[in-house]
Amino acid sequence: MLHRTDGAARLATYHTPHGAIQMPAFAPVGTQANVKTLEPRDLHELGCQIILANTYHLYLRPGHRLIQKLGGLHRFMAWDGPILTDSGGYQVFSLADQRQLDDDGVTFRSHIDGSLHRFTPEMVMEIEQALGPDIAMVLDECPDPLDRAYNRQALDRTHRWAERCKASHTRPDQALFGIVQGGIFPDLRQESAAFLTQLDFHGYAIGGLAVGETKEQMYATLDETCPALPQEKPRYLMGVGAPEDIVEAVARGVDLFDCVLPTRIARNGSLLTPEGRINLRNARFAEDPRPVQEDCGCYTCRTFSRAYLRHLYKAGEISALRLGTIHNVYFLMELMRQIRAAIAAGTFADFRAAFLERYQISNQ
Amino acid sequence: MLHRTDGAARLATYHTPHGAIQMPAFAPVGTQANVKTLEPRDLHELGCQIILANTYHLYLRPGHRLIQKLGGLHRFMAWDGPILTDSGGYQVFSLADQRQLDDDGVTFRSHIDGSLHRFTPEMVMEIEQALGPDIAMVLDECPDPLDRAYNRQALDRTHRWAERCKASHTRPDQALFGIVQGGIFPDLRQESAAFLTQLDFHGYAIGGLAVGETKEQMYATLDETCPALPQEKPRYLMGVGAPEDIVEAVARGVDLFDCVLPTRIARNGSLLTPEGRINLRNARFAEDPRPVQEDCGCYTCRTFSRAYLRHLYKAGEISALRLGTIHNVYFLMELMRQIRAAIAAGTFADFRAAFLERYQISNQ
Ligand SMILES: [Zn+2]
Ligand SMILES: [Zn+2]
Repeated sequence: MLHRTDGAARLATYHTPHGAIQMPAFAPVGTQANVKTLEPRDLHELGCQIILANTYHLYLRPGHRLIQKLGGLHRFMAWDGPILTDSGGYQVFSLADQRQLDDDGVTFRSHIDGSLHRFTPEMVMEIEQALGPDIAMVLDECPDPLDRAYNRQALDRTHRWAERCKASHTRPDQALFGIVQGGIFPDLRQESAAFLTQLDFHGYAIGGLAVGETKEQMYATLDETCPALPQEKPRYLMGVGAPEDIVEAVARGVDLFDCVLPTRIARNGSLLTPEGRINLRNARFAEDPRPVQEDCGCYTCRTFSRAYLRHLYKAGEISALRLGTIHNVYFLMELMRQIRAAIAAGTFADFRAAFLERYQISNQ
Repeated sequence: MLHRTDGAARLATYHTPHGAIQMPAFAPVGTQANVKTLEPRDLHELGCQIILANTYHLYLRPGHRLIQKLGGLHRFMAWDGPILTDSGGYQVFSLADQRQLDDDGVTFRSHIDGSLHRFTPEMVMEIEQALGPDIAMVLDECPDPLDRAYNRQALDRTHRWAERCKASHTRPDQALFGIVQGGIFPDLRQESAAFLTQLDFHGYAIGGLAVGETKEQMYATLDETCPALPQEKPRYLMGVGAPEDIVEAVARGVDLFDCVLPTRIARNGSLLTPEGRINLRNARFAEDPRPVQEDCGCYTCRTFSRAYLRHLYKAGEISALRLGTIHNVYFLMELMRQIRAAIAAGTFADFRAAFLERYQISNQ
């Protein structure tokens, strides 16, 4: 349900069997049915509305049948809010060993034990319906975004797989999202958006970005793709979680994001602030009595100094990883709240300019 | 303040600047100013009354002067309850490299960076007074409990060091506990208890146990040592945390315990139950929908199945270590509550028999 737009930015509510999601929204990633270092009570406290889990990982371990037998993914991981599962396609192409692709599907070896497996659109739908998330994704192929010939060839297969996913998906309480591909090529993106739109999915993901192209190429691709998608359906930019990218993508009409970024960089000591990332392992924080971020409301900032957190990181304490994760996830949830408030007030352009002016991009 | 006894078991309240401790009590270990995987809010939720921190570790990293500058150990780690620090002696003898002992003190190299350091009784008092725990421990030597000649020789040095610690300890808001040594030898233990008693410490630790002797030898040593200590002062058995040992030591008159056991074994998948330890990595828990312990009130048991926790352990998720730790610490806190209730009711002998009958000892 679209409430209002502010330029191309959109304020919307998306309803699922496990509750409504206020969009634009960010989904932390719980690859193995756990957002690393966090518990369901933490996710609620941090204001998380939806989380993502990985089909490839859960299929391999502990297995979708086991999770189904134990009551489905929500009950298994004790998270009562909305869940989205990816299709596992991206992991098959990036993690699995010895993959062999054909038009019918993909055969691969587990990165865990080398065992042989096969994903087809029908098999992936079976897995996602057994896991039982609120939103399932179609199986797609994710080519190098700069390789036109590969994208041209892969796009047809991705569209056939989308049709087969749609045909074999029967769970009425589960939404199914299509995935627009086409690399950085406007004509391919528009063709993909048009094809998937006529299949009438519950929502549309933009895949194949944030995997090697420049930020300018990613933003330009969003400029081409978003207007080609139906106004009334949610738009989900997969694998994007850098604050500057979220702000720029919202400005182009994206509603939903997921990324391992906030949780992964936290485990490396890198914490998000309105001025950019700071790395708490740095010696300059050794005697710093201030919180990570002065005006942050998270438990970490309300409780501990930079000096203490740096000590935990340097001493190899597991608690450091968790306390850093708490802050980073809270930071992104707060960013999304600010984005929604700005769109509601019709001041998103000002918010965007002010945020990007203050936020210094770095990969430290 | 001793409320009542039940046989040799004692129910008491010990007052510190950061609150009262109901005894018998168990102190989880926060070696590096952090009980591994837990936060202060967790410790409160679990019912922890006092925690231990390690002088040797904090002296080396981040340094006692830094902690003092940042407001002391309580403020540094954001724990507002009682803290006890050991003297670092045990770690110098077990962790440090190239230690050289003389009557005046001990010179050693850091296990972190090989740097050279020296602990004397006066230096240890300076460190512990800078850290600012509620209870400080004297520097002692911890010999092999079965080696009579070494214990005879070490005991005199330990007693000289106890005198020097007492003489150089000036912080009026900090209690100082002496440490009885003497291995498994009744005459040495009695000599040590008598010597330290005339120095009039705030409390007395029993050191040099749970480091190689049998359980029977440890219990027999407690039988000899406890009656030789003053009735009105707390008695602290260092480094003991196995449930069966706690029950047996309380039966012999011990008031306080500390041990890494509940937190360390949890990180290995081993969880405490009234029937003994279970290891969640075991395949028999793969599809087990029950909580770790049916009647446990901890967050882990209230929220997750054994099957889910096993999955987290097998998948290498950090959350497994934390959720296991939460249960194990809660289990020991609940054991101490039950022990105190039984002493208060005059039924501790029955409680002890029933607990030991049900609890199967194993090291799995
Ligand atoms: Zn924060
Ligand atoms: Zn429990």
